[in-house]
Amino acid sequence: MSAASFLARLLGREPRAIERPVEKLVALCDALLAESGEYASAALVADALAAYRALDERCRAQFFDALATRYSPSPEIVAAAAAAYQAEPSPAHLERLQEATEPARQELFRRLNMAPGGTAVLVGMRQELLKKLKQNPGWRAIDFDLKHLLRSWFNRGFLRLERIDWRTSAIVLEKLIQYEAVHAVQGWRDLRRRLEADRRCFAFFHPQLPDEPIIFIEVALTRGMSSQVQPLLDVDSPVSPPQNADCAMFYSITNCQEGLRGISFGNLLIKQVAEALKSEFPHLRRFATLSPIPGFRRWLEQNAEAALMAPLEDPAWHMGEIPPHLEKQLIRLCAFYLLNAKQGQEPLDAVARFHLGNGAALERLNWLGDASEQGMARSAGIMVNYVYWLTEVEKNHVAYFREHRIAASPSVAKLARECPLSQAAEKGAA
Amino acid sequence: MSAASFLARLLGREPRAIERPVEKLVALCDALLAESGEYASAALVADALAAYRALDERCRAQFFDALATRYSPSPEIVAAAAAAYQAEPSPAHLERLQEATEPARQELFRRLNMAPGGTAVLVGMRQELLKKLKQNPGWRAIDFDLKHLLRSWFNRGFLRLERIDWRTSAIVLEKLIQYEAVHAVQGWRDLRRRLEADRRCFAFFHPQLPDEPIIFIEVALTRGMSSQVQPLLDVDSPVSPPQNADCAMFYSITNCQEGLRGISFGNLLIKQVAEALKSEFPHLRRFATLSPIPGFRRWLEQNAEAALMAPLEDPAWHMGEIPPHLEKQLIRLCAFYLLNAKQGQEPLDAVARFHLGNGAALERLNWLGDASEQGMARSAGIMVNYVYWLTEVEKNHVAYFREHRIAASPSVAKLARECPLSQAAEKGAA
Amino acid sequence: MSAASFLARLLGREPRAIERPVEKLVALCDALLAESGEYASAALVADALAAYRALDERCRAQFFDALATRYSPSPEIVAAAAAAYQAEPSPAHLERLQEATEPARQELFRRLNMAPGGTAVLVGMRQELLKKLKQNPGWRAIDFDLKHLLRSWFNRGFLRLERIDWRTSAIVLEKLIQYEAVHAVQGWRDLRRRLEADRRCFAFFHPQLPDEPIIFIEVALTRGMSSQVQPLLDVDSPVSPPQNADCAMFYSITNCQEGLRGISFGNLLIKQVAEALKSEFPHLRRFATLSPIPGFRRWLEQNAEAALMAPLEDPAWHMGEIPPHLEKQLIRLCAFYLLNAKQGQEPLDAVARFHLGNGAALERLNWLGDASEQGMARSAGIMVNYVYWLTEVEKNHVAYFREHRIAASPSVAKLARECPLSQAAEKGAA
Amino acid sequence: MSAASFLARLLGREPRAIERPVEKLVALCDALLAESGEYASAALVADALAAYRALDERCRAQFFDALATRYSPSPEIVAAAAAAYQAEPSPAHLERLQEATEPARQELFRRLNMAPGGTAVLVGMRQELLKKLKQNPGWRAIDFDLKHLLRSWFNRGFLRLERIDWRTSAIVLEKLIQYEAVHAVQGWRDLRRRLEADRRCFAFFHPQLPDEPIIFIEVALTRGMSSQVQPLLDVDSPVSPPQNADCAMFYSITNCQEGLRGISFGNLLIKQVAEALKSEFPHLRRFATLSPIPGFRRWLEQNAEAALMAPLEDPAWHMGEIPPHLEKQLIRLCAFYLLNAKQGQEPLDAVARFHLGNGAALERLNWLGDASEQGMARSAGIMVNYVYWLTEVEKNHVAYFREHRIAASPSVAKLARECPLSQAAEKGAA
Repeated sequence: MSAASFLARLLGREPRAIERPVEKLVALCDALLAESGEYASAALVADALAAYRALDERCRAQFFDALATRYSPSPEIVAAAAAAYQAEPSPAHLERLQEATEPARQELFRRLNMAPGGTAVLVGMRQELLKKLKQNPGWRAIDFDLKHLLRSWFNRGFLRLERIDWRTSAIVLEKLIQYEAVHAVQGWRDLRRRLEADRRCFAFFHPQLPDEPIIFIEVALTRGMSSQVQPLLDVDSPVSPPQNADCAMFYSITNCQEGLRGISFGNLLIKQVAEALKSEFPHLRRFATLSPIPGFRRWLEQNAEAALMAPLEDPAWHMGEIPPHLEKQLIRLCAFYLLNAKQGQEPLDAVARFHLGNGAALERLNWLGDASEQGMARSAGIMVNYVYWLTEVEKNHVAYFREHRIAASPSVAKLARECPLSQAAEKGAA
Repeated sequence: MSAASFLARLLGREPRAIERPVEKLVALCDALLAESGEYASAALVADALAAYRALDERCRAQFFDALATRYSPSPEIVAAAAAAYQAEPSPAHLERLQEATEPARQELFRRLNMAPGGTAVLVGMRQELLKKLKQNPGWRAIDFDLKHLLRSWFNRGFLRLERIDWRTSAIVLEKLIQYEAVHAVQGWRDLRRRLEADRRCFAFFHPQLPDEPIIFIEVALTRGMSSQVQPLLDVDSPVSPPQNADCAMFYSITNCQEGLRGISFGNLLIKQVAEALKSEFPHLRRFATLSPIPGFRRWLEQNAEAALMAPLEDPAWHMGEIPPHLEKQLIRLCAFYLLNAKQGQEPLDAVARFHLGNGAALERLNWLGDASEQGMARSAGIMVNYVYWLTEVEKNHVAYFREHRIAASPSVAKLARECPLSQAAEKGAA
Repeated sequence: MSAASFLARLLGREPRAIERPVEKLVALCDALLAESGEYASAALVADALAAYRALDERCRAQFFDALATRYSPSPEIVAAAAAAYQAEPSPAHLERLQEATEPARQELFRRLNMAPGGTAVLVGMRQELLKKLKQNPGWRAIDFDLKHLLRSWFNRGFLRLERIDWRTSAIVLEKLIQYEAVHAVQGWRDLRRRLEADRRCFAFFHPQLPDEPIIFIEVALTRGMSSQVQPLLDVDSPVSPPQNADCAMFYSITNCQEGLRGISFGNLLIKQVAEALKSEFPHLRRFATLSPIPGFRRWLEQNAEAALMAPLEDPAWHMGEIPPHLEKQLIRLCAFYLLNAKQGQEPLDAVARFHLGNGAALERLNWLGDASEQGMARSAGIMVNYVYWLTEVEKNHVAYFREHRIAASPSVAKLARECPLSQAAEKGAA
Repeated sequence: MSAASFLARLLGREPRAIERPVEKLVALCDALLAESGEYASAALVADALAAYRALDERCRAQFFDALATRYSPSPEIVAAAAAAYQAEPSPAHLERLQEATEPARQELFRRLNMAPGGTAVLVGMRQELLKKLKQNPGWRAIDFDLKHLLRSWFNRGFLRLERIDWRTSAIVLEKLIQYEAVHAVQGWRDLRRRLEADRRCFAFFHPQLPDEPIIFIEVALTRGMSSQVQPLLDVDSPVSPPQNADCAMFYSITNCQEGLRGISFGNLLIKQVAEALKSEFPHLRRFATLSPIPGFRRWLEQNAEAALMAPLEDPAWHMGEIPPHLEKQLIRLCAFYLLNAKQGQEPLDAVARFHLGNGAALERLNWLGDASEQGMARSAGIMVNYVYWLTEVEKNHVAYFREHRIAASPSVAKLARECPLSQAAEKGAA
């Protein structure tokens, strides 16, 4: 096979013509890989990072092509090493095999990570890569290598939990405003309210990205479990004394780094935050979320009767009087959706997958819990409380993964059973 | 091939019988690997680390056997993945190949690294492994995996340089006393002298090992380049005003973590320390070492004439009057040794390889530079100054690696040429 | 003299009737003073601080009356101690005299200062006192004692200089927005521009008021000395690379704590900031202010001819074309004002007194340097550059205080001489 | 009165001739006082501090003479101000009076305190002064002023409590070794034992003396109340798990700064440490001391029968068998001493005064609690436990100061009553 056709196969298309700045960067990368590891020149790394940063979007695409094609392992050498290992699975053969299969890209990325700022560049590189991965399936190998390394470097053991409050630096607070993905922050005043005495906010940080939150969570300390999110978001709501609270409501959790997609921290964050809160407020009795049900409305449109859906076509349907029958039906359908709609063996709803997989229990559905435009569009306005019962989290987590069982309160389970779809299914089964 | 004989091949001997605590630990490791990565239980990791810590030496050997045999890739699956990749080197095949060849051990170690203290356990594990690697060649695969991961986690970008002085915590200072490998520290008073105003000490630290220096270097600020180490080590020597110094003498550099053997930090440390010193004392004109020549005496015994060596058999030969001829010959031989004795294309002397590879120049030999017992035994008392000329470091480094050329001062080069071995070689060549 | 008439004399009026909460607080203060100092109860201090904080404005006035009347030294005991000291000025008599004359208030304030938050309460107390001092001349003794103690506690040696930037905590940044007294900050965006790479901001902090700046200064790094303040305040102005700057322009300096009025930090702040800047940017050639001339317009109205002043009555006089004659005359009058208008032997202008007393030199007048409403109203739009020539600051300072000499550039001196008032004065003298 | 005889009266003797360096320093002090406070030159302060530091012992004595004589208030001005105040006690007259009576020395010290290191110099100055105060009664006025200011600057509110452990910097730990005044530390190994997991050590620090502990306390966490100090001091004693402890034994408390003599921190330290320990170990049931009785043996010699004292003349009397009668009598006498021997209305024993004044209760006497040479010489080997019952501390403290009542356990009270001296007293009373 000719080199050109080999590259074409790797990329799934003809490689792009390479411009001058990309050529220079590739030459720097080659020089970096040629160094003996121990002495790899800090100057060379810094030059390569600077050259990469200076590339425009088109040149970066060319550079990704080069990364995808130049630094993959040789099929022939791999095959020979695999055969030797098959003939005799000795440590020496295993070592040779691992060396043969590891793309040189990985070593390149490791060396780029040595310089100050290297980690940030690599996280940013993956973010860009992911944006255009669909159109460039040949880049998947780069993504695989970057994700592999980033998973290792962003090992949970390297993260530190920090409380975010009004004493936090503006450079970090500004990023919270910018990143918040669940309930957008309306400027500094809104942020300040979210950091008052009856709120808590925590984030994970990594030593190499000191001013960049990796993931953060917002908590409201309340009496009783919140059923509606708008009061929590009201900038002018009065601040309640936190010592009277008996619930910690997790009302927003945001992954900040698109470049770390698929490397998960939320599970650990929730557990560490629950512990930190428990130790600050020993009288807290419940750790619960007030969560959206992002896939409900879409599922509804495919599964509910047309007659039920008709009134919902008016975007203001919830403003006026709502027929009790409609509310009852929607709530039952929502319970059914959360408990029975599946993707493989897990719930179809992404947020449900996350919290139930973490060991939370599905506790309560809240009619008109989020009456914002987005809340109506995604969840027909319904919100759900997942509760983290600290003593049952482990048990629920195991049951979820081993037996695909969902922990749900009796009342939610009952709603689901009352749903016509449920009764139809039973009849079908009978 | 039967499972037993397969294991025997992997280990290079029959596997040991496994005792109860090891069985339990292996079960924990299996459970940990069975988890979905995103949710891997912190409790499970903590249990596994505790179980490992509790093992005695015999049980640890059994556990290493298990690590070597249980978590290696399947030769059959590897062979299939290699064949597919050879047939079509697509990203998907490459991904499958990498997944097939990565030992499950690596994922196990990554998960163990998630808990607080995990990194320290893994560094300690490798230290123990290395101690008995010769007798257990089957463990090499474990070492390969641990080193691979530790290199990634101890990436230079993650290290921070810290100055060590009398304001440093006792927990760290105590470790300096314990670890110093070049010129042993005689208790707190000795250490204190080494941290006075005319000295500097720097170490690298890693965020996961906050109280553990990774590598440290001791520097004396002097007028003129030091030729003897004993005055530098004299606890009662007067402290000179550092602003009068024109030389920074690097007189000791110690790698602290046996478990990180083969992962090199010295090169970077010297360069960062030189920069830090230059910025604190802009008038410093020379950054030089006062180094041992650890392999000289051994080489001498194999290469010098018996007549020359005879007087050296008396351990006190250097105490009385030394015949000028003897001094002259030893110095010439030493220059020859450093410039011409080779291991492959690099110098035979390990310290020379390190500094010359870093880009230093061989500047001066010092007769009776280290008259301690150890200094006489290893280097016949001679010490060498390597100089780091900041503007030539890069050039020297490149010349060393590309052309195997050693930067040496004219006077050292002359001494080497005057050595009889050198003249013999030339005659031989003629 | 009856007690009542004595109190009336102390206060300069009848004392107010005292309400219940004030009675309780006074009782706490008495109990606190009754304690032996070594054991003064932390609980008592905390109770007294809480009781004070809970008082409303009217009660506070009653409490100030009590402070003014209850805790002053006894005239009889003072007289006896003074007589004894006059008869024999021994250490014992001096000690007795000092004890007799120190108001018990001082010890009370010292004890209130022992508890966490005590310093902040006392600074706040003086702020309130000062607001109503004119109407309550009897409170002057309290102010004297508070100022005496605060001067001691806010000793310069206890202050630490901190750089303020976008990494500073929001709690401090918010206070900058609130306190800035020279050129008001228009929200977070404006503040952020003032903390960009071509700006510097520094503040003094005291260990007992960790989140409270005491005084802060804003600096712009510029090429050439700024002549107009509006471009510096423009939120949308481009950020220039600071390494190209040759001037540090001090364009705003704000005392934050009204309760520390009369305790001066500005002199030290400017000098420490100049040193910090010089060490960060060794190529800076000039440290200068761009200052308002707050008393000029008022002085002008009293001293300039009516004909000159007539056009200025139109608030928009500077918007259209300005007759060259008017500009020339105003500039000359301003130079004359700064150099010759006096309050005692010092300049009449408060900002001039501050910078010239610090050792700065009057360098340049800037026509329409501040065209804001406030700038026109106070300074007829003119601004002045004072320059801190680091090598002449000490000399200027001494000349200013010993000989009342003002360091001024030849061009400003010439403008002053050209002023008609100056020529009139000379004629008068002739 | 002539100036010379006036000075002689102030000093209580002829003033010393003044040498050149002292003259220079006095001139610097005069210049410093001549400055307007706001602008007091940092350079002048630094010069004066350096000049003082450079003085030898003889010159310092001359400087102290100058301080005592030059900077005292004028008797005439004081008398006039006192008369005016007596005639009309207005705020203005009070202000003038306070200004007239404050020695210029105080302002001098305040200005010296402005520069970095000033506080340390002043603390050191008072330390030197105190050493020779007896021979130089004329210096008492200096001491009075220094103490007055230091009390203000070392206000408790400015101190921060810090835990001392093996993570503390060597520069601080070294000072603990040097300062420990109750049970001397035998080098680093001994110190390390005192900082192990079953011990706690806390110190107060002041922001201006960052590396200098002001006072520190050593605590052992034990099961049951310790009765003997030697086991606590044993370097080779095993470390017990702190979570099993039910007592916190305060076995040593040391004031570090001789220059702060008479400014008390111990009371606050004990209370803050008790709170910190209670929060770390909620199951601690008792906070007690194991204290020496430093005045007992001296008192014994004056108050006990000769027959009883005779055996004690042998320094090794406690090594052999001790007659039960002797032990019983000594213990009773000790109880009597602690409860009944007085200095004014407080206990004669200094340590008893401190702990009982703080609100502790006299709980138990321990025969041979300190069998060291010093323990035998001062306390006849007996030690005492004072207990801080957290709920009764305030009550005991009040009873001690108001009613001179000592809180003692029934058993100690009984021992005191059984003492022959007690019975003699009763008989006398009857």
